Amino acid sequence: MEQLVHDAARRARTAAAVLAVTTRADKDAALEAMADAVLAATDEILAANAGDVEAARSRGTEGHLIDRLSLDAGRVAAFAEGMRDVAGLPDPVGEVVRGSTLANGLQMQQVRVPMGVIGIIYEARPNVTADAAAICLKSGNAVLLRGSSSAARSNAAIIDVLRAALVSVGLPADAVQIIPADDRSSAEHLMRARGLVDLVIPRGGAGLIRTVVEQSTVPVIETGVGNCHVYVDADADLDMALAIVLNSKTHRTSVCNSAESLLVHKAVADEFVPRVVAALQEAGVTVHGDEVFRAADRAVVAATEDDYATEYLSLDISAHVVESIDEAIAHIRQFSSGHTEAIVTSSLASSRRFTTGVDSAAVMVNASTRFTDGGEFGFGAEIGISTQKLHARGPMGLPEMTTTTYVIVGSGHVR
Amino acid sequence: MEQLVHDAARRARTAAAVLAVTTRADKDAALEAMADAVLAATDEILAANAGDVEAARSRGTEGHLIDRLSLDAGRVAAFAEGMRDVAGLPDPVGEVVRGSTLANGLQMQQVRVPMGVIGIIYEARPNVTADAAAICLKSGNAVLLRGSSSAARSNAAIIDVLRAALVSVGLPADAVQIIPADDRSSAEHLMRARGLVDLVIPRGGAGLIRTVVEQSTVPVIETGVGNCHVYVDADADLDMALAIVLNSKTHRTSVCNSAESLLVHKAVADEFVPRVVAALQEAGVTVHGDEVFRAADRAVVAATEDDYATEYLSLDISAHVVESIDEAIAHIRQFSSGHTEAIVTSSLASSRRFTTGVDSAAVMVNASTRFTDGGEFGFGAEIGISTQKLHARGPMGLPEMTTTTYVIVGSGHVR
Repeated sequence: MEQLVHDAARRARTAAAVLAVTTRADKDAALEAMADAVLAATDEILAANAGDVEAARSRGTEGHLIDRLSLDAGRVAAFAEGMRDVAGLPDPVGEVVRGSTLANGLQMQQVRVPMGVIGIIYEARPNVTADAAAICLKSGNAVLLRGSSSAARSNAAIIDVLRAALVSVGLPADAVQIIPADDRSSAEHLMRARGLVDLVIPRGGAGLIRTVVEQSTVPVIETGVGNCHVYVDADADLDMALAIVLNSKTHRTSVCNSAESLLVHKAVADEFVPRVVAALQEAGVTVHGDEVFRAADRAVVAATEDDYATEYLSLDISAHVVESIDEAIAHIRQFSSGHTEAIVTSSLASSRRFTTGVDSAAVMVNASTRFTDGGEFGFGAEIGISTQKLHARGPMGLPEMTTTTYVIVGSGHVR
Repeated sequence: MEQLVHDAARRARTAAAVLAVTTRADKDAALEAMADAVLAATDEILAANAGDVEAARSRGTEGHLIDRLSLDAGRVAAFAEGMRDVAGLPDPVGEVVRGSTLANGLQMQQVRVPMGVIGIIYEARPNVTADAAAICLKSGNAVLLRGSSSAARSNAAIIDVLRAALVSVGLPADAVQIIPADDRSSAEHLMRARGLVDLVIPRGGAGLIRTVVEQSTVPVIETGVGNCHVYVDADADLDMALAIVLNSKTHRTSVCNSAESLLVHKAVADEFVPRVVAALQEAGVTVHGDEVFRAADRAVVAATEDDYATEYLSLDISAHVVESIDEAIAHIRQFSSGHTEAIVTSSLASSRRFTTGVDSAAVMVNASTRFTDGGEFGFGAEIGISTQKLHARGPMGLPEMTTTTYVIVGSGHVR
């Protein structure tokens, strides 16, 4: 298996050298060809997917996981639409990030170039296969896709179609490759192929991400774990605070940018705590609170330290009253996963203090945590939301899939 | 030892939270105080250094390593001067990298913020202690310095002075801490303190860097290994080529941006190979060449594959004649460490092909490889030269010591 993964990575490197000098027009033509081919192969893709779904059912897989795995004609059409959207986005490759003429006359430009070979390790959703292939191609990168074994038939069918489409426009099929998912070790070999693979991005649950982060020798971008906080300041508009807490928590619970913890300044606790508890309970949310919250309502469950550290991804929220904005910031620095924090306040001083004091990928002032999203930010495509500090932080669009090179032009300059 | 390193990292995190909200004026005042304090403590620093040098001599350490370790009043004054230079540079923290108002009225800004806690693992030069402390402080980061045991007395003396200076201006001493070097495991604990340390930068030889890259669970920026190439194109001005080859190879051999390999297009080989071999030999360089080079001069040593992969850091160079620019690019993609490559050509097409075809941190057109340097690029301060693709590539100045956060301001926005 190691040999197989390394051979695939070598072929990907060869393809990446071609992609690095492929023009935007040719990449966009490939994306359109891929979209057309996916639509034309809808029946084959759905047949393969039916095989995956049947196998999952016979293993007794839970319903919401079956739902994630299942495709229909509408979802396949959405893959194609997504590829056309990526074709419409600007090409990050060749963008001049910085440039100047040095004192000695050397002309210096820092230019975006592709990363090279990117490995994506992901769980059951087959849409990641199509999305990741499109985003990597547009950014000039070859991709090695290692999905889950439960989606193996669907992923193989999609990849076959995409590879044929690449060949049809004169690009190397090996720009998009699948790594077999039937053997656990394939993911390990992928994340340890340092020198052959330039970057690994895990997409999935906290367990998958932790494994990749700990075992990979290839550089990793951590994505997606979100223990997000909403802090209601002493100077908050409490109606606005209520709306933002509810939206952050209940708009969609299974996503990384939903809120998992509520902090309330003591100055507004008497008025706000009973209101927010009632509203959350009415929305079906279980509140795990401190003594103040428990005093306000008997249905509030006692919160432990573990609650404050938990990303529930469900209709649960931890809740705590703080003595000051600084205590809120300290609490967040202690427990947050560094994804998104929100403050509700009408005080400019509080806003400044909070936005510079917390240490997360995104900070919302008077807005729901749910806005941390590549689509909402106008990036057009998103490969994930980075919660690490190196290279990319927050929603990752096409520019985040590139690195840079310094191009220096002289006329015989020596030192 | 693990406890000791983790405790230091926790204190550093607390200090980092203070530095994150410290103004530029206060950071610059601290740098000036540090510079003054280092100058005032010159005698103590030199006395400590004399102890290190004496111990190294009694262990029979080689002369050039003793030289790297040795300080004198001039070198100490240079530390102070370097700190004042860093004080004069713009503060990267707070820089708005990108900003817009979204369609829904949310105001979005991507703002530079400090990384947090940075670990630097380095070898014998005590100047790194002062440089790294200054660069980290200016970029708002707390630093954990793990130098070599051979410089332990010097480093401890410098750090004592810097910490006292920080306290004198009201900043936390723990913004700059030393990790004991007398136990090999301290470096390992530092590079595995994921969650406590945000970034590790190794500075030193290839062995140190490989160890850190392989063992670290904290994100790493690889620095400094340079197997740099000069390619003399069919359309090169051969006088210019000769000057660039000689400068790239011989200006300073022990540095990562010196050239280690020469590629010559066959069209100019007859004329150029004998000239360049003669000139290199006159400069004391041993040429390790292919058959064409050996045919030109009997003193040329036969090159092996290993030679093409070697960073000599000495008066040696590997040399090979290529059939085409594409063979040159392929050779470089195979053997380069991704630091710097140079092309000498008067052809615009060759220049474009080479700069987009190679995959290195810097590409020089008609200029010496020696120009890849933070000082030459006008960065003012440099923590190292990254040869990896993630986060920072090429010379790393102050902006590369930061990450970003998205600050989003609304007026009660929900989804």
